Amino acid sequence: MTILEAAAQLRAKATTSRQLTENCLARIELLNPRLNAFLTVTADHALAQAHQADRELAAGHSRGPLHGIPIALKDVFETKGIRTTLGSLLFKDHIPTTDAAVTEKLSAAGAVLLGKTHMHELAYGVTSSNPHFGPVRNPWNTNCVPGGSSGGSGAAVAADMCFMAMGSDTGGSIRIPAAFCNTVGLKPTYGRVSRRGVLPLDFSLDHMGPLTRSVRDAALCLQSLAGLDPLDDTSSPEPVDDYLPPPSVSLAGTRIGVPENYYFDHIDPAVQSSVRHMVQLAAGLGAKVEVIRVPDIPAMNATARVILLSEASATMERFQHRRLEIGPDVRFLLDQGRFLAATDYINAQRARRVFRDQFLELFRRVDVIFTPATPTAAATIGQTTVRIGDHDEDFRLATTRFARAINLLGFPALSMPCGFDANHMPLGLQIIAAPFEERQLLAVAAALEDQTDFHLQSPPL
Amino acid sequence: MTILEAAAQLRAKATTSRQLTENCLARIELLNPRLNAFLTVTADHALAQAHQADRELAAGHSRGPLHGIPIALKDVFETKGIRTTLGSLLFKDHIPTTDAAVTEKLSAAGAVLLGKTHMHELAYGVTSSNPHFGPVRNPWNTNCVPGGSSGGSGAAVAADMCFMAMGSDTGGSIRIPAAFCNTVGLKPTYGRVSRRGVLPLDFSLDHMGPLTRSVRDAALCLQSLAGLDPLDDTSSPEPVDDYLPPPSVSLAGTRIGVPENYYFDHIDPAVQSSVRHMVQLAAGLGAKVEVIRVPDIPAMNATARVILLSEASATMERFQHRRLEIGPDVRFLLDQGRFLAATDYINAQRARRVFRDQFLELFRRVDVIFTPATPTAAATIGQTTVRIGDHDEDFRLATTRFARAINLLGFPALSMPCGFDANHMPLGLQIIAAPFEERQLLAVAAALEDQTDFHLQSPPL
Repeated sequence: MTILEAAAQLRAKATTSRQLTENCLARIELLNPRLNAFLTVTADHALAQAHQADRELAAGHSRGPLHGIPIALKDVFETKGIRTTLGSLLFKDHIPTTDAAVTEKLSAAGAVLLGKTHMHELAYGVTSSNPHFGPVRNPWNTNCVPGGSSGGSGAAVAADMCFMAMGSDTGGSIRIPAAFCNTVGLKPTYGRVSRRGVLPLDFSLDHMGPLTRSVRDAALCLQSLAGLDPLDDTSSPEPVDDYLPPPSVSLAGTRIGVPENYYFDHIDPAVQSSVRHMVQLAAGLGAKVEVIRVPDIPAMNATARVILLSEASATMERFQHRRLEIGPDVRFLLDQGRFLAATDYINAQRARRVFRDQFLELFRRVDVIFTPATPTAAATIGQTTVRIGDHDEDFRLATTRFARAINLLGFPALSMPCGFDANHMPLGLQIIAAPFEERQLLAVAAALEDQTDFHLQSPPL
Repeated sequence: MTILEAAAQLRAKATTSRQLTENCLARIELLNPRLNAFLTVTADHALAQAHQADRELAAGHSRGPLHGIPIALKDVFETKGIRTTLGSLLFKDHIPTTDAAVTEKLSAAGAVLLGKTHMHELAYGVTSSNPHFGPVRNPWNTNCVPGGSSGGSGAAVAADMCFMAMGSDTGGSIRIPAAFCNTVGLKPTYGRVSRRGVLPLDFSLDHMGPLTRSVRDAALCLQSLAGLDPLDDTSSPEPVDDYLPPPSVSLAGTRIGVPENYYFDHIDPAVQSSVRHMVQLAAGLGAKVEVIRVPDIPAMNATARVILLSEASATMERFQHRRLEIGPDVRFLLDQGRFLAATDYINAQRARRVFRDQFLELFRRVDVIFTPATPTAAATIGQTTVRIGDHDEDFRLATTRFARAINLLGFPALSMPCGFDANHMPLGLQIIAAPFEERQLLAVAAALEDQTDFHLQSPPL
């Protein structure tokens, strides 16, 4: 069931927030021991919120489509009085005294908080298994990773433990778990959703956004999350659009760019055919398909990595005296970042502007760009390389290589279900739009979703 | 004669642009061999521009107060077809194919370009003498430095070689030569004046502004220079004010902050008494004097130096293969910058925001802040340390220590004549205002100038 459907049932008194919440809690109780998607379950808190929502709804006071809907937050979002670990021993006993902006906004919209989802250590881990809290498992195959760093959020939404889970995305951390778990994952434009109350991994690459079971659910969530936060210096004053796509979307006249370079090289043939199928579907709906050449994506990924390594190490410098509490993979990344030169960082930020201008130029010719979200489906837990065609690639680098460059740009992008590989593991289509064009992005995605049933398929749990 | 007076004479047909220009060229011919203020004199170009200005003025078409006024540009501003050296061998034969934004704006305002003024090597030199083009000499004592890096501009204005000379200011490079040469020097708010067509020394600390013989002249120049430049990413869309102070300015109700910490420690007693005298003068004009505590200025200076070293080295990295053409002092600074860590740079930028917030808080209580521009007057050419009280300080560090922190803030500040030391060398009062409060800043300065005659005194040439 989607948020849109649940909200309709609540309005029709066909269900209650308490019922929805109890169903989710039962699902969590049943499946979390196998999936490890939640680090903290706030059952009492959730039931109290559901009770409150039901009272308000019964009194005719609706806060909107999220009112009474059970959701979850990646454990990076501060929650007043509720442990917020960041998947790290550094924060294992951290009880925030205030809510993050996202927590506040969802609470004000009447959403019911079920708990905090598992994640890569500090949203930065390399391996698929968090060294402190164990691995999250993919509902489609519990031997596989759910993708990261918002892996718990992807698994929780895919396994029907909640209607939506928030993620954060610095180099693909929303879109990758969305692709690997068969959910929608939306990374809004940089500055669109406040980051207040989230320990930054990387000031200039971090984005906050929802993982949901449908495109329209993502739009509903963005509607509640978007807007200027005067307390977040990176928050944008750009006006908030009406994001919910209409029940029927036309693609007539929409210009879809499909890269002829990079994005279709060295990928699983199933990814190739699934994404090409979505392009044809869009063309069938009246979209104009344009073959484009994208800028140098490997250079963009390298540029983003210099920025990420540097900024993450700068943020974490104050924990240097507790470095032994950090797992070896993240510690190694933090050490790498400490040895980068200031000039490398500055020149990376300068190069970034050039890439951004090149992409803005591309977006004069097209409205959206279609690419695969990842070159392959999820790998097995513990697997460090992945075989693509006739050679092996580092799994983390392979997984992030279609997503990371878009964080460098700060442009909005989403991943949506687009098919399955030979092992029936889910695959994602990435759609990228120009800055603050989330409305367009979501409309195109909704048009495709309306013509497909990938998102309706359930994992074999 | 000031610009305001010359413009009145032009209007009254009491003089011509040609006459003003010939006078300046004669003065340059007479004095430049002694002062070395100009690297390039564009006599033919200037006379042609003056001729054109006279024709337009005779036809009743006035472009405003700078129309027909002879001015000069620091040799960092690109001038189409006119050599632009940056005081460096790297650019000794550089003939730009386009004008800098400042060049364009002054040309559009009808100003007559006399030539390009001398400067520290790459606006970054340590020693008082440029190793390639020799030292600029201070008109008040030709054994002394004029201050840097816009030393040629300070000397040229003080020696009546031009009515105004543009400077650039990364750590005091407008205000210091203004103070040492007895001129007004205005560093506008970061983003107020376009930097297009100036090779950046430091993206986040560079500011462009005028050196003039009076406060109102600085206001007239700012009026022509200010405004959004869509081709400069750091240019601000903040509306342009009406900057020219009225003929009579009241200070009734103006709140003047005078720091009780840092700015009056370790300074020449003559600086102490001169600046205190200006405070009393302001109080006599009705201003309310508030004793304030400023944030940790040495920490701000250190933060600014990390940023400067890093960004300058990043900019100049592409000249690494020509490093032996760079003088030893600048080469040493560039090498230092290459060894700074990315994390140091990032944390410096983070600290900067904290300092900025602290100063914004201060500016809720006061409208402007008065400090000395420098701890002492100009030193002798070649002198590397300066004795203040009972100890020696590095001259460059001493000279910049009141100015540099304000570049970190990006707030507007000016230096204006406020007296002379025991050797009759000029001293400067620094006035600092809140972002985009140039109008207020210039009004306070004009009120003081109207009550004093320091700016009317001429160097003994």
